[in-house]
Amino acid sequence: MSQPIPTGPGQHQVTGRKYTFAPRMAKTPKSFIREILKVTEDPRIISFAGGLPSPALIDVDNIAAAAASVLAKDGQVALQYSTTEGYRPLRQFIADRYKKRLGLEVSPDEILITNGSQQCLDLIGKVFIGTGDHVAMERPGYLGAIQAFSLFEPIFHPVILHEDGPDPVQLAHTIRNYPVRFFYGIPNSQNPSGITYSAERRMEIAGILEKSETLFIEDDAYGELNFNGKSLPSLRQYIPDQTIITGSFSKILAPGMRMGWVVAPLPIMEQLVVAKQASDLHSNYLSQRIAFEYLQTQNIDTHIEKIRASYCHQRDVMLSCMAEFFPDTVLFTRPQGGMFIWVTLPESVSSMAVFDAAIKENVAVLPGSPFYIDGGGNNTLRINFSNSTEEKIRTGIERLASVIKKQCNQ
Amino acid sequence: MSQPIPTGPGQHQVTGRKYTFAPRMAKTPKSFIREILKVTEDPRIISFAGGLPSPALIDVDNIAAAAASVLAKDGQVALQYSTTEGYRPLRQFIADRYKKRLGLEVSPDEILITNGSQQCLDLIGKVFIGTGDHVAMERPGYLGAIQAFSLFEPIFHPVILHEDGPDPVQLAHTIRNYPVRFFYGIPNSQNPSGITYSAERRMEIAGILEKSETLFIEDDAYGELNFNGKSLPSLRQYIPDQTIITGSFSKILAPGMRMGWVVAPLPIMEQLVVAKQASDLHSNYLSQRIAFEYLQTQNIDTHIEKIRASYCHQRDVMLSCMAEFFPDTVLFTRPQGGMFIWVTLPESVSSMAVFDAAIKENVAVLPGSPFYIDGGGNNTLRINFSNSTEEKIRTGIERLASVIKKQCNQ
Repeated sequence: MSQPIPTGPGQHQVTGRKYTFAPRMAKTPKSFIREILKVTEDPRIISFAGGLPSPALIDVDNIAAAAASVLAKDGQVALQYSTTEGYRPLRQFIADRYKKRLGLEVSPDEILITNGSQQCLDLIGKVFIGTGDHVAMERPGYLGAIQAFSLFEPIFHPVILHEDGPDPVQLAHTIRNYPVRFFYGIPNSQNPSGITYSAERRMEIAGILEKSETLFIEDDAYGELNFNGKSLPSLRQYIPDQTIITGSFSKILAPGMRMGWVVAPLPIMEQLVVAKQASDLHSNYLSQRIAFEYLQTQNIDTHIEKIRASYCHQRDVMLSCMAEFFPDTVLFTRPQGGMFIWVTLPESVSSMAVFDAAIKENVAVLPGSPFYIDGGGNNTLRINFSNSTEEKIRTGIERLASVIKKQCNQ
Repeated sequence: MSQPIPTGPGQHQVTGRKYTFAPRMAKTPKSFIREILKVTEDPRIISFAGGLPSPALIDVDNIAAAAASVLAKDGQVALQYSTTEGYRPLRQFIADRYKKRLGLEVSPDEILITNGSQQCLDLIGKVFIGTGDHVAMERPGYLGAIQAFSLFEPIFHPVILHEDGPDPVQLAHTIRNYPVRFFYGIPNSQNPSGITYSAERRMEIAGILEKSETLFIEDDAYGELNFNGKSLPSLRQYIPDQTIITGSFSKILAPGMRMGWVVAPLPIMEQLVVAKQASDLHSNYLSQRIAFEYLQTQNIDTHIEKIRASYCHQRDVMLSCMAEFFPDTVLFTRPQGGMFIWVTLPESVSSMAVFDAAIKENVAVLPGSPFYIDGGGNNTLRINFSNSTEEKIRTGIERLASVIKKQCNQ
């Protein structure tokens, strides 16, 4: 088969056949990350480019035991079709955990099990975004969300992310001037920046949204990975009927099972369930049962403590290497949790040039510009610390520093 | 939480909060099937309403062995993030099986692993359907496809399904008059009708489409469940660059793992991969690995033979009971495979009335009208035979027959 030859917007040609695709496809960015990850499959490369959990912190043996137990005691049911909403005891577990961790009252009826939290974004896009509808996002914003929402052809409005959260003046201004369907954000250890909204900023954002019809989509993929163990409030505490939370087992259990969930007020949940059913009937039921069995038989808090301790140490090593090796003109965030550090190079330095030069030194980093819906960020990098050992972090950051120094001097 | 009070098109109210949903949601039918399945959860009810495989034909022990083996030998990888396209050896297996079963040349690069074949329909909708684009479907047509495509707001054109396949004159007429993006059909043991396109009709349909830009979406969920063991050709044999095939492990392995796939020419596959990545990154990788391990260690042909023999017998029992108990004015299909028989009542008899009366006799059937995109079918029923024992089939059909007789005499 030959490679496709682009012949114009939305059309491709192969063996003479032209295909016409829906306009939305031309608006959906291909994942630059995905292309980079292909480059970094080479085992000689130290990769800070991806967003993978540490494989050493996947509790394989106990997940295997949970799988064996589910299949032995209820295999015929666990392998059969199931309900769109998901396994109710798992939804109850998630609801109970919100109560315990954040003091939030959540009913299992307000929870839908999804294929990782990425699918929540697809379902939210389906339910809320008509072509040309207005959506606000952090700047920089999570690339997966930009991709998921782009399929529904919204008009994006960036809201600058400061060290303590989104700019409240810009958010208020945007909401005043446009009928913004929702503001999407990651209050805890944001991807890509590592920033956590302060407690004050959360209240302020809630106060701004409360006066509007704009919803808050609270992507909480990293909420359990806060290194000091102290959780800041969800916006659901302040504006419950305006907040949709997305959650994930990918960072605390295992990403390969694609287990996530969305929490939404009942009238919204009703629509999300219709969208979910049309999209893929229901999420993998076997994996839902395995996840629940694991959560019943193992202490997830102990496991999360291990993850936190390890990632916290990896972050500390990386930050101290950055402080030691990077030129003073390079800025970087000090994330309270999650998996990423955000690096800002001097304005004259191109992160694409740094990427190219670093790959030659067998170090992969992620240029930050794809995270900017309105362009910019050409001097930024997202650096992952969760998927590299202490030794690789030291070696990789030292090499990266010398690449950056050379670029600064050009 | 109180139940939502509808306040107008696309709006719901709860505790004073109004929500505005995207216009597509108002166009997407809620699943009547889903509502019915809730009614039929009562174990006293004999249900012919669903579309579930026989639980006795899910090979739980060997799937459990495959799961244990994958987790023991490669757990850290099987539980980690993976590629959007899916596990390559599994895609190679699927490609090889097309060669063996249908003589089709398919490259693994043309295969994407999905969450059951339902997700293929969502991805195809994303890639091809812009608002108001034209889509043709069989009449009656698969409800899951109606739901999936509706989210992208097409204009549907029904093409009447005869005993040997879709009406060629109507299809040609539709394609001549509208720029139809694709014609969606299920050539083997269609859901809901049980109809299989004849060999001649397949060639004829391909000939009609070949002269147009219209693609054929060949949903082949039941292709392996043909009771005589003889496969009729895929339209990919005739119009390879115009055919997209969707496949599923749900009917031959286990539906709970939500494993399906889509086969498409490379320029289309490129777009499907972008859509898949935006939708949920990739399908459950653990289940992909389990499925592949199972297929490597077990003989799937032997297993499929068992399924065919059992479903064929269940069909025969049901057909003979229908012949014995149904009034002569009731017509029914004689499917060559799959899981469904399609029943046409006299025009004066309402299948909703039959549904209501049958439930009181602890028998559940599925009224056929939701399968008609343009209304109609009010005297039709879809009857599933794969999920009931011989004894339940006899009891259920006898009870259903007496309900139908009463309705005929009213």
